[in-house]
Amino acid sequence: MSAGFGLDNLPYGVFSRPNGERRIGVRLGTDVVDLSALGGHLSARSLDPLMAAGRREWTAAREQVVAHVTAGPPLIPLRDVTLHLPFAVADYTDFYSSEHHALNVSSILRPESPGLSPQWKHLPIGYHGRSATVVVSGTPIPRPHGQLGAGEFGPTRRLDVEAEVGFVVGRPGRRIATTDFAEHVFGVTLVNDWSARDLQAWEYRPLGPFLAKSFATSVSPWVTPLDALATAPPPAQDPEPLDYLRPAGPAFDLRLTVEWNDTLVSTPPFASMYWTAAQQLAHLTSNGASVRTGDLYASGTVSGPARDQAGSFLELTRNGDEPVKLADGTERGFLLDGDHVRIGGTARSAAGTEISLGSVSGTIVT
Amino acid sequence: MSAGFGLDNLPYGVFSRPNGERRIGVRLGTDVVDLSALGGHLSARSLDPLMAAGRREWTAAREQVVAHVTAGPPLIPLRDVTLHLPFAVADYTDFYSSEHHALNVSSILRPESPGLSPQWKHLPIGYHGRSATVVVSGTPIPRPHGQLGAGEFGPTRRLDVEAEVGFVVGRPGRRIATTDFAEHVFGVTLVNDWSARDLQAWEYRPLGPFLAKSFATSVSPWVTPLDALATAPPPAQDPEPLDYLRPAGPAFDLRLTVEWNDTLVSTPPFASMYWTAAQQLAHLTSNGASVRTGDLYASGTVSGPARDQAGSFLELTRNGDEPVKLADGTERGFLLDGDHVRIGGTARSAAGTEISLGSVSGTIVT
Repeated sequence: MSAGFGLDNLPYGVFSRPNGERRIGVRLGTDVVDLSALGGHLSARSLDPLMAAGRREWTAAREQVVAHVTAGPPLIPLRDVTLHLPFAVADYTDFYSSEHHALNVSSILRPESPGLSPQWKHLPIGYHGRSATVVVSGTPIPRPHGQLGAGEFGPTRRLDVEAEVGFVVGRPGRRIATTDFAEHVFGVTLVNDWSARDLQAWEYRPLGPFLAKSFATSVSPWVTPLDALATAPPPAQDPEPLDYLRPAGPAFDLRLTVEWNDTLVSTPPFASMYWTAAQQLAHLTSNGASVRTGDLYASGTVSGPARDQAGSFLELTRNGDEPVKLADGTERGFLLDGDHVRIGGTARSAAGTEISLGSVSGTIVT
Repeated sequence: MSAGFGLDNLPYGVFSRPNGERRIGVRLGTDVVDLSALGGHLSARSLDPLMAAGRREWTAAREQVVAHVTAGPPLIPLRDVTLHLPFAVADYTDFYSSEHHALNVSSILRPESPGLSPQWKHLPIGYHGRSATVVVSGTPIPRPHGQLGAGEFGPTRRLDVEAEVGFVVGRPGRRIATTDFAEHVFGVTLVNDWSARDLQAWEYRPLGPFLAKSFATSVSPWVTPLDALATAPPPAQDPEPLDYLRPAGPAFDLRLTVEWNDTLVSTPPFASMYWTAAQQLAHLTSNGASVRTGDLYASGTVSGPARDQAGSFLELTRNGDEPVKLADGTERGFLLDGDHVRIGGTARSAAGTEISLGSVSGTIVT
């Protein structure tokens, strides 16, 4: 767990010690470095003021942090702190930008008419989620209840994960060009958009998912600043997107891992996403809608072309019909009570090294 | 505009005078009564602290306000103040609970398969909207841009309104029984959920409306406390709802008006809604999701059975095919730049009188 958390990374988080107040820190190996003595926005109780300050101050803060960490500050072991949601989530939006995921879901749930919906390659489809229920990694996830069909209410039988990458908006704006992506997005986090597939199938027409996803969305406790990440060439797109979605902007070479009760079951490749985060932000604000400090938008489930690159268990187990075998010999179609899921991630850093995005985890409770 | 704002009403708002700070007030006739000297939560800069305090304090505050207003306080003419969004909107949710509206929309937009979706009478369908773009009545509404179809981006040609009633959550909770509705809901406001029908038709499958509605949602500046409103018998529901949606809870006898450039074009009757606000709140929290102080959930478009009771212009003009004639002799299918819409409302008060819910208005700008 310590690899990938060197000077080339330094993700931001908010921690507290027993009976202590919340402070901003960065992760170094298996330790936290307290930044509260550095003053300015770094002395705040959350990342919100720093996030609101904009790109120039983000870069300056990072330089200050690198100098501080290099000077050999006191290290606080991670096991001695509690990690908190590092920013106040304003609006939470979720996209649907993996072509493999969209095709998989379509063939599993709508076998009579599989394929992408007509607008899929013209715009990044998305929807608004519930910001009240975004929780930090480690928060237990109570199994949601809901309507499973006509006349039936009870605990979901098809509790699933969605492995995603989240983008955290710092500087507010509207009609944000793809070329201005880095002026508005502060950093990257990992997201698990827990989903109840039976609730979803029954409720979603015509206004989209609602209670199937509103009960909990987990995010990793660390926000990796954009400055730490190498960019990659954007994906090929055909048809050519409209002007407001061009240029596509940077892609990021992130590799996710999904562990189900400590068994590695999937390795979703973020580089396979069809729409970039810059295009998602441009689309989100293209109608004139504003984004605020603390807006969180997620990529949509990251699924690669292979079965063991699926970002959801719906895809991995073909809707439960083809269970996966875990290391303890048991099989799973969907999540059972007591199950634990950890979504991890690594990235190529701006320095050319491999760094860690940490992980987002949760255990299902009744 | 002064009728219906007597001692039997006293809706809360937040106002400021030129160069002055924000204060809580109640409306009396065409005046505002400043409540800031009353202390406690009434001295705050927004309704948030009062809303968070819960039913007992809401009732106590109202008694204090009635006594204050009865004693003949100074009156500040409405024309001398600016009215603000009276609370910080946390999550914004919108329902779809008028059977007439759902049937109208279905027959207009999906004539090949008209009718309610299979779950419509089993649960109140809803979706999450964008809280960042909830604005107070009077805020100009820039015409949104977006994809009108494959390869086409530009200003919407089918800009519409949705006349709705909003419910403002005060006390947080989860799994809220319909019988606890009044413990959590602070009051009622009027909502116009502006909608771009061409954007909506192109984008909405399978995740629901997104940019077609995220550009702006207007709310009235006054929140009428539940204590001011008479309750009415709930609607007949067949099939009988599941246990968690029973009893249906109170309905409210509210009558809306829609004026297009000062021509009264529609009178939507809120009493015709299929699902009650108590059932909507119970459903919203039935999966375990929490609501917070400042959550706003709207009823969905209020449409009665008659054409001139439609809560949207899509319905009123049959998707623009049957324009309405305005008082100035011009015709309209959808909104033109410069058009002004005012949605008003009246209610039966707890005292048995007719009171006003004020209005929510907006003008379309380029």
